[in-house]
Amino acid sequence: MKAAILRAGQMVVEELDDLSPGPGQVLVEPIACGICGSDLHTVDHAHDLVAAAVAAGVTSFTADFDPDQDLVMGHELSCCITGLGAGVSGISEGDEFAAMPYLETPDGRVVPGYSNRFPGGYSSQMLLSPEALLPIPNGLDPVLAALTEPMAVGLHAVNESSITPDRIALVVGAGPVGLAIIAALAASGIEAIIAADFSPTRRRVAEQMGAHQVIDPATHSIVDAWRAAGDGTTPPVIYEAVGVPGMIDELMAQAPSRSEILVAGVCIPPDNFRPSIGIYKHLSLRFVLGWSPEEFRTSLHNLAEGRIDGSKLVTGHVGLDEVPQAFKDLADPEQQVKILVRPNGKL
Amino acid sequence: MKAAILRAGQMVVEELDDLSPGPGQVLVEPIACGICGSDLHTVDHAHDLVAAAVAAGVTSFTADFDPDQDLVMGHELSCCITGLGAGVSGISEGDEFAAMPYLETPDGRVVPGYSNRFPGGYSSQMLLSPEALLPIPNGLDPVLAALTEPMAVGLHAVNESSITPDRIALVVGAGPVGLAIIAALAASGIEAIIAADFSPTRRRVAEQMGAHQVIDPATHSIVDAWRAAGDGTTPPVIYEAVGVPGMIDELMAQAPSRSEILVAGVCIPPDNFRPSIGIYKHLSLRFVLGWSPEEFRTSLHNLAEGRIDGSKLVTGHVGLDEVPQAFKDLADPEQQVKILVRPNGKL
Repeated sequence: MKAAILRAGQMVVEELDDLSPGPGQVLVEPIACGICGSDLHTVDHAHDLVAAAVAAGVTSFTADFDPDQDLVMGHELSCCITGLGAGVSGISEGDEFAAMPYLETPDGRVVPGYSNRFPGGYSSQMLLSPEALLPIPNGLDPVLAALTEPMAVGLHAVNESSITPDRIALVVGAGPVGLAIIAALAASGIEAIIAADFSPTRRRVAEQMGAHQVIDPATHSIVDAWRAAGDGTTPPVIYEAVGVPGMIDELMAQAPSRSEILVAGVCIPPDNFRPSIGIYKHLSLRFVLGWSPEEFRTSLHNLAEGRIDGSKLVTGHVGLDEVPQAFKDLADPEQQVKILVRPNGKL
Repeated sequence: MKAAILRAGQMVVEELDDLSPGPGQVLVEPIACGICGSDLHTVDHAHDLVAAAVAAGVTSFTADFDPDQDLVMGHELSCCITGLGAGVSGISEGDEFAAMPYLETPDGRVVPGYSNRFPGGYSSQMLLSPEALLPIPNGLDPVLAALTEPMAVGLHAVNESSITPDRIALVVGAGPVGLAIIAALAASGIEAIIAADFSPTRRRVAEQMGAHQVIDPATHSIVDAWRAAGDGTTPPVIYEAVGVPGMIDELMAQAPSRSEILVAGVCIPPDNFRPSIGIYKHLSLRFVLGWSPEEFRTSLHNLAEGRIDGSKLVTGHVGLDEVPQAFKDLADPEQQVKILVRPNGKL
């Protein structure tokens, strides 16, 4: 098999030994696998990511991930079954699925893509658990089914927030996480979604995903937009989807009194903030990550039934050989939003 | 009249001109006025407090408070009516009340105690609005009615949290705010309250206020206590009542996954934290301050009907002349918990 491998901070493409499924596992060919912001971050900051997980006591993330060893990333995927391990029934070779990225092993559950032993979706083959597979409903293009995972991240942030139809949603940052939040808000029927991003391209996509208003934070204040769009007193829910140091403090300083700030952007370095601003303004901060299986399923149906148009997010398709360049291209927000890797060359 | 005045970082006691109530105001003699942690903080950090409020855009706090001018503090009080302004009816001289610290003026509402123009309760006279006065029910000692305000601060923190009887409450810090939270939790019927404080005296008072278990954080972990006291999976609600830099990060690092941290301690300096720990552990932080009139009323009834025994909190009574020394004594947690100032000498 062939894979794009993170090795010592560089992405390289190589042939690796073929996989074979153990009991209760399935062998799949990824149909499409989205490049996630976390993956970009892992290239430069793998040790910091693991150290932060260790500091948080999250053993599930670190047990199978040594940043000094080779890693095949990729956890946003759809796939086609190519082999069944012993005891697997009810599915057949050739079946296509949206896949949650997990694999039950004799040593416990691992996340392919963040495991040195089990490759993720930037590979022509991978192993998954059959329980991780969801049939693709309603004629959805299996390529777009790979967007289920990032859409579930957005839905989880929305579900963990206290947003209600009478409140205004402010989405700060229209990268993949921010866009997924906008899509989930719109799919949930929220009627006032204001998004901010410095990039004209991202602002355009934000509108396509359901933002009712977009602003350039270089010239406009999202809080002014909130004030103009509503009664100026009902506090907004603010979704932080930037994830750089200083952003939480800046949003706390800008936020109207009694705002809720959902922290969905992943900021790994230590950060500074002013608790006094939170206290004087009665703010709340809620940190979110990941999704539930139910949110994954709902997101797949949102894509399949047209509540979210995933095609608007996808700005490029690449084969495995182009993955290293794609990682570089994603640094420019004007050029790319979501690139799907097509490991088996079916472009 | 006589007052304890904060002047250029020092507490001094002086005679001031007598007050007279304007239309719609009442003149009162404070019966008792508790020394609040915020007042201690204001002596050393008045400029920082005002700067933090300005940074948060809280104009109500700064409009009438210039830290370079004299200030008569004191906002935890009970009082006796000694004069009625024009148009005030339904109350009489000699009536005794628990008082919310506010005064309507032609320039808007001010908080006596944080106003250079209108003295707070460390004074033999002050002005209040009649709407700020609550009759003292059920034969409660009017001196103990001065504890209504700090008890309301604790109740507000509890009400803003998502505590339920099946969750364990962890109270970090058993100063006046932490003790008020413990009292409110116990009065609300919460059945597992674990409190941590370095001071043996504070731990003893925490038990008297309703903590079911107290621990010394120098030798024991509050999270270990949580694990031993429950199922080890239902996340606790953690009440942060220390308010020093580094405390929020330390609690985030210690907190079990999905904990809610109520930040009730007032930390004015900028602080550091690791958002990644919040993200990996799905934490939420809720910053709280103050109380609602309804919470004030409920707290008065909690004191009057025995759900909270305020007498256990009071470790000293002083006249106005002893206020400067009392501020110094409160630095030692073994010596004092709550000192009540008795401005009119009725000790």
